[in-house]
Amino acid sequence: MTKIRIGIVGFGNLGRGVEEAISFQKDMELRAIFSRREIKNVRSGVPVVAVEKAVEFKDEIDVMILCGGSATDLPVQGAKFASNFHTVDSFDNHARIPEYFEKIHQSAMESGKLSLISTGWDPGLFSLMRVLGEAVLPHGKTYTFWGRGLSQGHSDAIRRIPGVKKGAQYTVPNEGALQDIRDGKQPDMVATEMHHRICYVVAEEGADQKKIATAIKTMPHYFAPYHTEVHFISDLEFDADHQKMPHGGKVLRSGISATEENQLLEFGLSLNSNPQFTASVLVAYARAVYRMSKEGKTGAVTVFDIPIGHLSAQAPEILRKEFL
Amino acid sequence: MTKIRIGIVGFGNLGRGVEEAISFQKDMELRAIFSRREIKNVRSGVPVVAVEKAVEFKDEIDVMILCGGSATDLPVQGAKFASNFHTVDSFDNHARIPEYFEKIHQSAMESGKLSLISTGWDPGLFSLMRVLGEAVLPHGKTYTFWGRGLSQGHSDAIRRIPGVKKGAQYTVPNEGALQDIRDGKQPDMVATEMHHRICYVVAEEGADQKKIATAIKTMPHYFAPYHTEVHFISDLEFDADHQKMPHGGKVLRSGISATEENQLLEFGLSLNSNPQFTASVLVAYARAVYRMSKEGKTGAVTVFDIPIGHLSAQAPEILRKEFL
Repeated sequence: MTKIRIGIVGFGNLGRGVEEAISFQKDMELRAIFSRREIKNVRSGVPVVAVEKAVEFKDEIDVMILCGGSATDLPVQGAKFASNFHTVDSFDNHARIPEYFEKIHQSAMESGKLSLISTGWDPGLFSLMRVLGEAVLPHGKTYTFWGRGLSQGHSDAIRRIPGVKKGAQYTVPNEGALQDIRDGKQPDMVATEMHHRICYVVAEEGADQKKIATAIKTMPHYFAPYHTEVHFISDLEFDADHQKMPHGGKVLRSGISATEENQLLEFGLSLNSNPQFTASVLVAYARAVYRMSKEGKTGAVTVFDIPIGHLSAQAPEILRKEFL
Repeated sequence: MTKIRIGIVGFGNLGRGVEEAISFQKDMELRAIFSRREIKNVRSGVPVVAVEKAVEFKDEIDVMILCGGSATDLPVQGAKFASNFHTVDSFDNHARIPEYFEKIHQSAMESGKLSLISTGWDPGLFSLMRVLGEAVLPHGKTYTFWGRGLSQGHSDAIRRIPGVKKGAQYTVPNEGALQDIRDGKQPDMVATEMHHRICYVVAEEGADQKKIATAIKTMPHYFAPYHTEVHFISDLEFDADHQKMPHGGKVLRSGISATEENQLLEFGLSLNSNPQFTASVLVAYARAVYRMSKEGKTGAVTVFDIPIGHLSAQAPEILRKEFL
């Protein structure tokens, strides 16, 4: 079997997750990792190459998985790589997706390559569920809950407060809201009502805990409109319980069909490692990109354009026989 | 806007559900219902036509939704309709899908039409989730639970027992098994361990309830290997509580990613009307079939071959902007 040859661009948590996820897929092999930094500890043992030299691997890599961040890396790298490679990325700045899509689309159309943007779990699998729910039950409401999960951005915000030594913030769905929807209600709700924020903080010695708690709870945008809990814990407890990156969430569609019957669709993820799961999704979609490129598809696409069967290593007749 | 013109073949619970579901979709219109029986009470007011005359509507119908049963209707009608129309059906005899697929594929290839077989929720949406889960988390296990829901076949089996006046059987997931999986375990389990069967029975006057209960619990295939409860209730109670057709279920994928982190994916449906939901799924897929036929696709396909975006009435740029 000819294996699908993958390259990784960017080697943070997501890139490392992709390296591992490829090792789980029998029809894929990792060829090289491209990075701006020097990297040791590459478990797979593949070459680590300076990102500027990636183009030299043009004929040796079938799909390049871009693992950079959405704030600064992908807006620069995305279109550049699309001019030489089929690509997959996890661009997750929701507001900027249309603009990013156009840029990548133009680059990929010119090069005759295929680029899947914005996959992972949200955007990604959750997006699929939002479209599916609305298509099947047009009269209804869709709800997206995030958590229970560690939010990197909010944890960073806590750590910037004077007197804070360590901090972790978990986004937690409001169980009451979730139950209302499961009971067939369709409440009007915004994200601030659907989630709580729970913070674990290690304070510097002698710091004023009350002041820190107030600073967190009143921080605009990040915390102010939310129900926020702040718990002060010891250094030891923090290191034991808050070093992982769990996340997840739920997409629910509550709708009615004829004769006003309520119908509920619920998709949920409980992830012990957020970056590793995102990586697993990117890798499965790399397979789909490879196949669709073989079918002659070019330009930019999203998860909405990909048949689910293309994600699977199994042959179509096996899927029909064993999975349908 | 030119609307997608739909025809319905077969007008039982599913066909009636399709009629209603089409009225929820702004870009579709029902043109005619084809039936072997005479039918009154057609809410939409469209013509009801003898099934033999369907071919006369060849140029007036874009997609024919086949609402017959899988035991006797579809094996005869499927290939016949595929030779004149794009079709969608809910063929759900899992063991016979490969054979059915080949038959429809041949007919549709010859006619240049496109036929989507075996959609609904299982087979259908649940099948999608089984493939998605395995593709993203190749090291893991997939579980399908059905219920809580009314099983027509098992209810019929109860009603054939002497002394039974009315009977309804609900398939119920074993909550303990479900919890084990949610807790990250990956037990080896077969369907009989994953489900219970709960029966509500109205006995004829003077009938031996003990004998009926034993006859149910020991009925081979249907009940014998399952944990089965039998409750005798009054006629009134039966009519009040057991006239609806609720169903649903869950597909779970429990897998590990790198460093053995457990990751769980769960898709669930809670349906107050099983046939109406199946109908809603068929109608959304009829839109996809219409679009893919316009792209030149022919032959037989399954849900695995359909991009989710094609199910939606929304334009691709709206999907990217508002749903991604």
